[in-house]
Amino acid sequence: MTRDIRQVSLPVRDMPTSWYNIIPDLPEPLSAPEGDMSAMGKVMIKECLDQEFSSENWIEIPEELQAIYQQIGRPRPLFRAANLEKLLDTPAEMYYKAEGLFSPTGSHKINTAIAQAYYGKRQGLERLVTETGAGQWGTALSCAARITGLEATVYWVRAVYKWKEARRDFMKLYGAEVFASPSGNTETGRKLLNEDAEHPGSLAIAISEGLEDALLDNKAAYVLGSVLNHVLLHQTIIGLECRKQLESIDRYPDVVVSCLGGGSNFGGIALPFLGDVLKSGRKTRFVAAQTEAAPNLQGEYRYDNADYSGITPRLKMYTLGHQKDMPPVFGDGLRYHGCSPILSLLRNKGYIETVAYPIDEKRVFESARTFLSEEGFLPAPESAYSVAAAIDEAEACKESGERKVILFNVSGHGFMDMEGYKRVLHL
Amino acid sequence: MTRDIRQVSLPVRDMPTSWYNIIPDLPEPLSAPEGDMSAMGKVMIKECLDQEFSSENWIEIPEELQAIYQQIGRPRPLFRAANLEKLLDTPAEMYYKAEGLFSPTGSHKINTAIAQAYYGKRQGLERLVTETGAGQWGTALSCAARITGLEATVYWVRAVYKWKEARRDFMKLYGAEVFASPSGNTETGRKLLNEDAEHPGSLAIAISEGLEDALLDNKAAYVLGSVLNHVLLHQTIIGLECRKQLESIDRYPDVVVSCLGGGSNFGGIALPFLGDVLKSGRKTRFVAAQTEAAPNLQGEYRYDNADYSGITPRLKMYTLGHQKDMPPVFGDGLRYHGCSPILSLLRNKGYIETVAYPIDEKRVFESARTFLSEEGFLPAPESAYSVAAAIDEAEACKESGERKVILFNVSGHGFMDMEGYKRVLHL
Repeated sequence: MTRDIRQVSLPVRDMPTSWYNIIPDLPEPLSAPEGDMSAMGKVMIKECLDQEFSSENWIEIPEELQAIYQQIGRPRPLFRAANLEKLLDTPAEMYYKAEGLFSPTGSHKINTAIAQAYYGKRQGLERLVTETGAGQWGTALSCAARITGLEATVYWVRAVYKWKEARRDFMKLYGAEVFASPSGNTETGRKLLNEDAEHPGSLAIAISEGLEDALLDNKAAYVLGSVLNHVLLHQTIIGLECRKQLESIDRYPDVVVSCLGGGSNFGGIALPFLGDVLKSGRKTRFVAAQTEAAPNLQGEYRYDNADYSGITPRLKMYTLGHQKDMPPVFGDGLRYHGCSPILSLLRNKGYIETVAYPIDEKRVFESARTFLSEEGFLPAPESAYSVAAAIDEAEACKESGERKVILFNVSGHGFMDMEGYKRVLHL
Repeated sequence: MTRDIRQVSLPVRDMPTSWYNIIPDLPEPLSAPEGDMSAMGKVMIKECLDQEFSSENWIEIPEELQAIYQQIGRPRPLFRAANLEKLLDTPAEMYYKAEGLFSPTGSHKINTAIAQAYYGKRQGLERLVTETGAGQWGTALSCAARITGLEATVYWVRAVYKWKEARRDFMKLYGAEVFASPSGNTETGRKLLNEDAEHPGSLAIAISEGLEDALLDNKAAYVLGSVLNHVLLHQTIIGLECRKQLESIDRYPDVVVSCLGGGSNFGGIALPFLGDVLKSGRKTRFVAAQTEAAPNLQGEYRYDNADYSGITPRLKMYTLGHQKDMPPVFGDGLRYHGCSPILSLLRNKGYIETVAYPIDEKRVFESARTFLSEEGFLPAPESAYSVAAAIDEAEACKESGERKVILFNVSGHGFMDMEGYKRVLHL
């Protein structure tokens, strides 16, 4: 009476109770930020600022927050893409973490949003301010703020704000205040709107606006959904769960694959396994799937700002330049000039590979359709890159005959992104 | 070190392996269908037809299908709506099953769609034909057909087809052929279009069209997503899981609440507990949440057709009349003239209560917003009725001081239904 394994569950009582901080295990110390830290010190949530520079290996998830993690559907299941394996005729085993479909806001972003909101509320704040690109982070922050009893203000890259009407309504339903960025609400925004009233915006610009807004309100904090160490820290719950789930069926990944913009979902699934590689010399490979619109891991490794205006301190990271123009893609969450300092360091040391897919996005949407047709689930455009890279890996295994274990993250669902599928695949 | 219980998981290995068939436990025999059965005998999947009239109490879920249930995210978690309880200041405990958010197509409909597709494929069919109202059933059937390697044709009530563009694209992405109903593809459709080229359609009309189509193709079957016994049978996996989950925390529901159109999600969560009531004399109450646009449980209990043209045999059920005009509502999945014969009999014997909410849907969308604000999850418009009725029950407990256990079903998510929220709540 054996059953095919298609889903590996993790009982609620086995949910990880600490996040994994890779900083003390890095092959060399992380370069400190450069420049004026005073703005960031002022607008960041204190607990997050502490976590940003912590040298503790494990940081406990407060019990109250563990309960909220349960509330938002954690632990999330790990699936085996058995139909997809069969279609590809690959000897590889393909496992994917369903972060998107099992999240209230549709992506992994809620994992850190709710942690930051929790700490912000505990600190006595009243409002959280942020930026968003694809909209997944803005939605997550809106939800997290609402659940914890805070207000939320979201600056949303105008090029995306304009067409993602349903997602905009979703944020408003959570009670958030949502601005198209550049907006008339800040100095940065007004300046850019003067140059071009239809300025499409960028993540870097939206960050500048949010920081400016938060700096003027001492009951507000500015929160980020990617790049920074504490954000990746919170996201490690993804990889920690995956490791437990794979252990329960006697598996360990040979390849870990995910899409990468700023690095939060990639870091989330990869860092616990990267830690294993650093500590034990395991041979696991790590593949970051990017867009040719913003292949930041193929940029320069140097100090650069996280935002457009240069309000933030400069971080040592792979960057395309903080004022770089990047063509629009449906996978807008990947359209960011820089990569997380932790992941950049690991990339620089040779631990992370990268692949970038063409701007027309045909390949990635076709891959997502194949995945949907076999497994049933609809990936977000960003997650379609992850699926494409996982398929590439599985096909390479077919060539080589290797029975590898491929682990990939489907970080978001695509229910609110049908427009991209429609246009690229001509539905 | 006690943790708040916010989520009750069920390990994959504990997923129910049989469906519960209430027919042998009913207080009196179910009245047989009346009229010509030849059309139904011809177009229905044989295994489903057998199950329709089975007198076995338990029907085994084939192992291969159990694996597919895993693939589509079963078992699904049960959540405790602790924040909502606190807001309502109720002594009641509120538990909800998350059928929508954890389903690849967004609702409970996939539970029977995949079972029917599985049996259809095994029988050697090539195509499944169906109708859809809100679109959840059509999407589920499209997904199920694609996963099992069948074609799908969907007749979709025109009034809904027109504005749910994203859901339409979603069905097409699964490879389904989708018609606005009435369509030019059938005799029934052409006749109605001649009378009114912009005819808004209805579920009953769409069923007639689908039946006509399937009758002309001996490699096709017509499949239904509600009303019939075998559909409710497949959906009992919802209630069977809930019962195990509640047992694991020493709870049993005092009230089971869900929305009701044809009865599939209501039956799915309620029938296992209704069986307990019939067999053991437990006092659990069952509340069906309906729309005043189609309060079929307040109609007449008599024989009537399931479709508009009278192709189907007549079923003994609560009905508003099979050619009844019903005003449009966003919770379109509830806009059907008749209720499942099994549930109708139980209603007639006094086991099921009903509440109908006004056509303007303000109350139900406000309830859904309250639920979203506290719990984070976005219900489908239909499920908003379930939420509203659960809140009513919790508020009654506040009045009476009773610490009841309320179990309700959030049968679908609302990611593709923001338009309803936007218009009714003026976002």
